[in-house]
Amino acid sequence: MTDPLTSALQYAENNHSRFLDEFKEFISIPSISTDPAAKPQVERAAQWVAAQLKSLGLTSVKIYPTSGHPIAYGEWLGAPGKPTVLVYGHYDVQPAEPLELWHSPAFQPTQRGENLYGRGASDMKGQVMVTLKAVEALGRTGKLPVNIKFILEGEEEIGSPALDGFIRGHKELLACDFALNTDTGMIGPELPTITYGLRGLAYFELRITGPAQDLHSGLYGGVVHNPAQVLCELITGMHDAQGRVTLPGFYKNVIPLSQEERLELAALPMDEEYYCQQTGAPALYGEAGYSPSERIGARPTLEVNGLLSGFTGEGSKTVLPAQAMAKISMRLVPDQDPEEVHKQLLRYLDRHVPSTVRWELIKMTGGPATVTDRNIPGVIAMSKALEATWGKPPLFRREGGSVPVVAQMQKHLGIESVLTGFGLPDDNLHAPNEKIHLPTFFRGIDAIIRFLHILGTGPG
Amino acid sequence: MTDPLTSALQYAENNHSRFLDEFKEFISIPSISTDPAAKPQVERAAQWVAAQLKSLGLTSVKIYPTSGHPIAYGEWLGAPGKPTVLVYGHYDVQPAEPLELWHSPAFQPTQRGENLYGRGASDMKGQVMVTLKAVEALGRTGKLPVNIKFILEGEEEIGSPALDGFIRGHKELLACDFALNTDTGMIGPELPTITYGLRGLAYFELRITGPAQDLHSGLYGGVVHNPAQVLCELITGMHDAQGRVTLPGFYKNVIPLSQEERLELAALPMDEEYYCQQTGAPALYGEAGYSPSERIGARPTLEVNGLLSGFTGEGSKTVLPAQAMAKISMRLVPDQDPEEVHKQLLRYLDRHVPSTVRWELIKMTGGPATVTDRNIPGVIAMSKALEATWGKPPLFRREGGSVPVVAQMQKHLGIESVLTGFGLPDDNLHAPNEKIHLPTFFRGIDAIIRFLHILGTGPG
Repeated sequence: MTDPLTSALQYAENNHSRFLDEFKEFISIPSISTDPAAKPQVERAAQWVAAQLKSLGLTSVKIYPTSGHPIAYGEWLGAPGKPTVLVYGHYDVQPAEPLELWHSPAFQPTQRGENLYGRGASDMKGQVMVTLKAVEALGRTGKLPVNIKFILEGEEEIGSPALDGFIRGHKELLACDFALNTDTGMIGPELPTITYGLRGLAYFELRITGPAQDLHSGLYGGVVHNPAQVLCELITGMHDAQGRVTLPGFYKNVIPLSQEERLELAALPMDEEYYCQQTGAPALYGEAGYSPSERIGARPTLEVNGLLSGFTGEGSKTVLPAQAMAKISMRLVPDQDPEEVHKQLLRYLDRHVPSTVRWELIKMTGGPATVTDRNIPGVIAMSKALEATWGKPPLFRREGGSVPVVAQMQKHLGIESVLTGFGLPDDNLHAPNEKIHLPTFFRGIDAIIRFLHILGTGPG
Repeated sequence: MTDPLTSALQYAENNHSRFLDEFKEFISIPSISTDPAAKPQVERAAQWVAAQLKSLGLTSVKIYPTSGHPIAYGEWLGAPGKPTVLVYGHYDVQPAEPLELWHSPAFQPTQRGENLYGRGASDMKGQVMVTLKAVEALGRTGKLPVNIKFILEGEEEIGSPALDGFIRGHKELLACDFALNTDTGMIGPELPTITYGLRGLAYFELRITGPAQDLHSGLYGGVVHNPAQVLCELITGMHDAQGRVTLPGFYKNVIPLSQEERLELAALPMDEEYYCQQTGAPALYGEAGYSPSERIGARPTLEVNGLLSGFTGEGSKTVLPAQAMAKISMRLVPDQDPEEVHKQLLRYLDRHVPSTVRWELIKMTGGPATVTDRNIPGVIAMSKALEATWGKPPLFRREGGSVPVVAQMQKHLGIESVLTGFGLPDDNLHAPNEKIHLPTFFRGIDAIIRFLHILGTGPG
């Protein structure tokens, strides 16, 4: 008779092919949360994950409606005295545009070599599958070693607007020892990673309007201030020559990096060359005085996410555009407040928009940055599980992305999140040809099996 | 028995309704020269104008193919000893986008009040109709008072790329005393206008490329230079704080305005308020030290005609775009050379594009500025004709738009162009809801009848 851990790992291995089929089914649902037209598909994805939770033998499985997309919940509380883990995930995905750059359709998951391509494969349908299948393997071959609660939302890619209220309103339902959140990634396929810091986000749309409508650039060029030019000037002014953000007060609450953290970040295997290779950029850029890892993980940034004005089709149209629009977002670090950043941007625009145009700023999504305590039992168990799976201890890092739920759970449930994941830097998150590396995906299932097993057997 | 002039004017008046029907038929053809998909429609418009020329009794009517869109030609040379007028026009139109802003479909001409709405109504199908119908009125009621040649091209809105070669290759066919070009407009419905200066044009597409593909702005924001930001910085740098263009050498060949010209431009009824009212802009902008009329007519400008980068749809997508594109064009004055300006822009980019991105500059269209001699018989006859029609002498002005054919005819045929037209400043050229003011359109027909009559009766 084999021990429970070996049985579960064996079960997972025997079921790779079925796991993959179900994973493909999940990716095929175009659950694009930002697109109002995709609402029925987002709903379908919620139903799909709820059915998975039921098939695992979880109880109280329910789809909770929200003001936006629904939240799927399920639990198994049959291990009294053992820790309770709240597994977080999101079943929504980013838009797939620009569609023409995909080598296979975004919502027809396609295997090429060791990779599975499709929108959401890595962010984060694959990561949700890893946790579901680890629980399945342990549950089907024995008894779950810990208590488990799943909370799977459908609005992560639009900033989780309804989740905060849901968590606040369901503190008892969600009561647990800590959360497991697999929405962060690995530094490389042989470099298991635990993330202990995440940047916050503040996202805006800025609209500049000049003339009442598009004008002939010859008949009015030289007397009407071109909104596209004004927009460019405003965006340019948002950084100084040192790559620092110029919004008034932007760095006021930024906690400086400690010497210890700087040394640790310096030890990560991510130098200039690494980032150039990962991105294809000819050279790096960024805030003077900070290394690439520091700039991504521990310093705030301001990015233009989109620009649109005037004539953008083929050929030449001599138009002086009536409007210009930019999507602009800031990644925040502790202790920056997204509401404060909104005010700073408003103050910047008040000061710098010329009287020759009108402007409007629309606040889209936002959430603060977080840093997780690295000494909680969940992080220690995850560290052991990753080491057992990869044969080496994990790297600890601060990541540039934003996962608003981590701050929401800290605030309302008083719990920390164990942040890991099995996506790779070249997975093309939010970009065409998103993929997941299947050998790493299956290793991820093993790691989560080990993690839950270690938690259940207690310290030592 | 009435005199020939009165007969022709009477004929025109009696036929307003049929003229309008034919005009609507002409507008209905979506002859968008910049759109490769519209090629058959552009061809149809050439056939349509050629049929009109034939119906006027012109001879040698022919559609000449070119490397791009065809040129329609026709002539009547039955007045030996009288002047020969080369009537220029273009039967192509601008794209109609953004379609959703039109109150009636762009290619379904719709009359509302005294205006006829439709793409090309004013620029310049309406102006072509004015010349065709003036010749019809004179020809059907008597004998044409002068020799007439029509040259109607289909590429004006893309910078007339084939026309230059056609004129150079058909100097004998096009031999004449001067050209009549009705592709400029009036300052107001009661202010007949002759244009004696036109700005030139140089149009480019600038593409900035950073990473190999769109990136997650959280995972790479802070280390990769955002191409949208770089593009904004480059565009910002193209003007200084005085609104002057900073391209190296841009003003080197600009001929300063004479004191006389400044006084004359100052007398035009177009002040700040006029331009704000015409455009809906809250305040004006432009090069320091010059009046609005000077900035539009006699100073070079640089405009952003379009911007596109990253995510521009509804909602928020946290992307760091791989590419950013701008359409940029300069309006030129004598003696700026579009080729020189191309080199100046290349030099500017060479100096200012950072090594963190790649760039590409595509030259689209271009042509030099022109100033017409105001003392040629054609201008004198037009001045008299406008005065007879409106009861007041015309205003003389330099206009901001560009009509490359004027320079091409000066160069290859050694002739000047009489520049006028019956479009109004609020005709929404190149914009949604283009229209023509019908009372002014019909007055334009009368003015051209008088113009040809005056030319035929000789000086005095």
